[in-house]
Amino acid sequence: MTPKPTSIILDWGTSSLRAMLVSGSGETIDTKETSSGGIQFVKDGAFEAALMEAVGAWFTAHGPLPVIASGMITSRNGWLEVPYVDTPGGVEELARGTRTQTLANGAVVTFLPGMRNPAAKPFPDVMRGEETQIVGFGLETDRTLVLPGTHSKWARIKNGRIEGFQTYATGEVFALLTKHSFIAKAEEPAPGSEPNWAAFDRGAEFAASNEAAADAFLSAIFSARTGVLDGKLKPQDIMDYVSGLVIGSEFRQARAAGCFTDGDAIGIVGNNILNSRYSRIAPLFRLSVDIGPVDAAKRGIMLIAAEAAR
Amino acid sequence: MTPKPTSIILDWGTSSLRAMLVSGSGETIDTKETSSGGIQFVKDGAFEAALMEAVGAWFTAHGPLPVIASGMITSRNGWLEVPYVDTPGGVEELARGTRTQTLANGAVVTFLPGMRNPAAKPFPDVMRGEETQIVGFGLETDRTLVLPGTHSKWARIKNGRIEGFQTYATGEVFALLTKHSFIAKAEEPAPGSEPNWAAFDRGAEFAASNEAAADAFLSAIFSARTGVLDGKLKPQDIMDYVSGLVIGSEFRQARAAGCFTDGDAIGIVGNNILNSRYSRIAPLFRLSVDIGPVDAAKRGIMLIAAEAAR
Repeated sequence: MTPKPTSIILDWGTSSLRAMLVSGSGETIDTKETSSGGIQFVKDGAFEAALMEAVGAWFTAHGPLPVIASGMITSRNGWLEVPYVDTPGGVEELARGTRTQTLANGAVVTFLPGMRNPAAKPFPDVMRGEETQIVGFGLETDRTLVLPGTHSKWARIKNGRIEGFQTYATGEVFALLTKHSFIAKAEEPAPGSEPNWAAFDRGAEFAASNEAAADAFLSAIFSARTGVLDGKLKPQDIMDYVSGLVIGSEFRQARAAGCFTDGDAIGIVGNNILNSRYSRIAPLFRLSVDIGPVDAAKRGIMLIAAEAAR
Repeated sequence: MTPKPTSIILDWGTSSLRAMLVSGSGETIDTKETSSGGIQFVKDGAFEAALMEAVGAWFTAHGPLPVIASGMITSRNGWLEVPYVDTPGGVEELARGTRTQTLANGAVVTFLPGMRNPAAKPFPDVMRGEETQIVGFGLETDRTLVLPGTHSKWARIKNGRIEGFQTYATGEVFALLTKHSFIAKAEEPAPGSEPNWAAFDRGAEFAASNEAAADAFLSAIFSARTGVLDGKLKPQDIMDYVSGLVIGSEFRQARAAGCFTDGDAIGIVGNNILNSRYSRIAPLFRLSVDIGPVDAAKRGIMLIAAEAAR
């Protein structure tokens, strides 16, 4: 028997709209993904029409189900701007920060807030979406969680709440260096090919080493070029060498910034490719790792929405 | 009375060829600059023809003067590859590393070597051209010299020689962030406009602060975005804020890597715009500054060539 749909979850970003039809116990019954619904493609604020185009058939079949929206759709350029909830905060504070809007068909859309860390230096730090992954991973254990990505987040969990977090622009710097720079422009690997782990480890091990030069990130990245000039790196090694170097540097810098100390157990919540890279580096910094569930975001969204509906 | 020309100095790079007709005492009598002579535009190794096209008239007027060539023309993709001279090394070692070639008209071209620091981590570091600026600045005083640029060099002078050096890809990272990134893409300033020093100082002061977060470069650069989101930075501030932040981070990282300690006197050799930015940051790190002569490269080239001719 097919489970009964009870809500629609939207991951609505700048370039695409992904929708899930889910049951009360969190099973995903159906999914839709459309790039035409991406915020940048929706004209004149016609978000309701875009939503109906994407999931109107679900409403027709199952009635005006409640909708839960997260992602950039809740930002200034989205449908309804939801103010950030400040850290420290947990499920309760996030639920209190939600906003709702009723559609023409009677369905209620709940828009989730992002989070803001007012204690971050030099300016308050922000995230919009990652907090659902953190909540979905679980707030029971006091520890540091890492969310790898274009703008990785290192979040501290304490007393059942997100105590604070810090963004590292690692994925973006990796892309800039390997696509646009003179020092590390890299050959694209064949799609689906395994990383060159030897090259990756070389970069990571330098970043984790006792060399004082590894504290100089602006200098360390020049090694992608000197390594090739010196015959130590092949052009096809550059991509993975730089990957190991910048992710390793993220760990080194996070340690310097006080995000962890030797022997800590951290959690990692990301996609499989990044999880494997981050998990490989953690032991170089004497960290043990728990990997989060793949559906952490959905779990977090449902927990926040359930609390908001109480 | 016009001084008598005694040699031709070439700064021959990838994108352009700059030539100076100089007297024995170093006065510049005439200059030529042509982009068609840039290495990337010279076909089939026709470098001699490109040189004659640029400065043939000087040979006709003054005879087969000696020519001194530096820049990428001495690299693998240039006219004649000159091996790097290893640090520690000074004028004598650089002179010994030169190579010569005689042209059809009888003029002798002396090609200057670059330098290589075999002790750099994780791979030997290299420079090609900056060593002439260092020699021209002077090797008499034991100190650290900074050569700001796309790939800044921090060089240590000791006992009349270049003891070692380290490259910081600061200028390139600045360009990547302000031209290509999501976090710090900046409005181009009006040509010739003064830097926004308040925005510059804001970035520099964070980089020089006691905040542990300033050790996390990959996180600090995200502040260009959070500063705007938080209303603390205006879009037109981004360019100079990022400039102060990355140059300040270069100093912070150079200190961590052992390039200087509190109270040191350093030298800076660069163009006027970068000199003013680097000089403004130095006191934040309790450094005093000597600015090198504008013709440091020419002076250095002539010193090395004179030693080679002995």
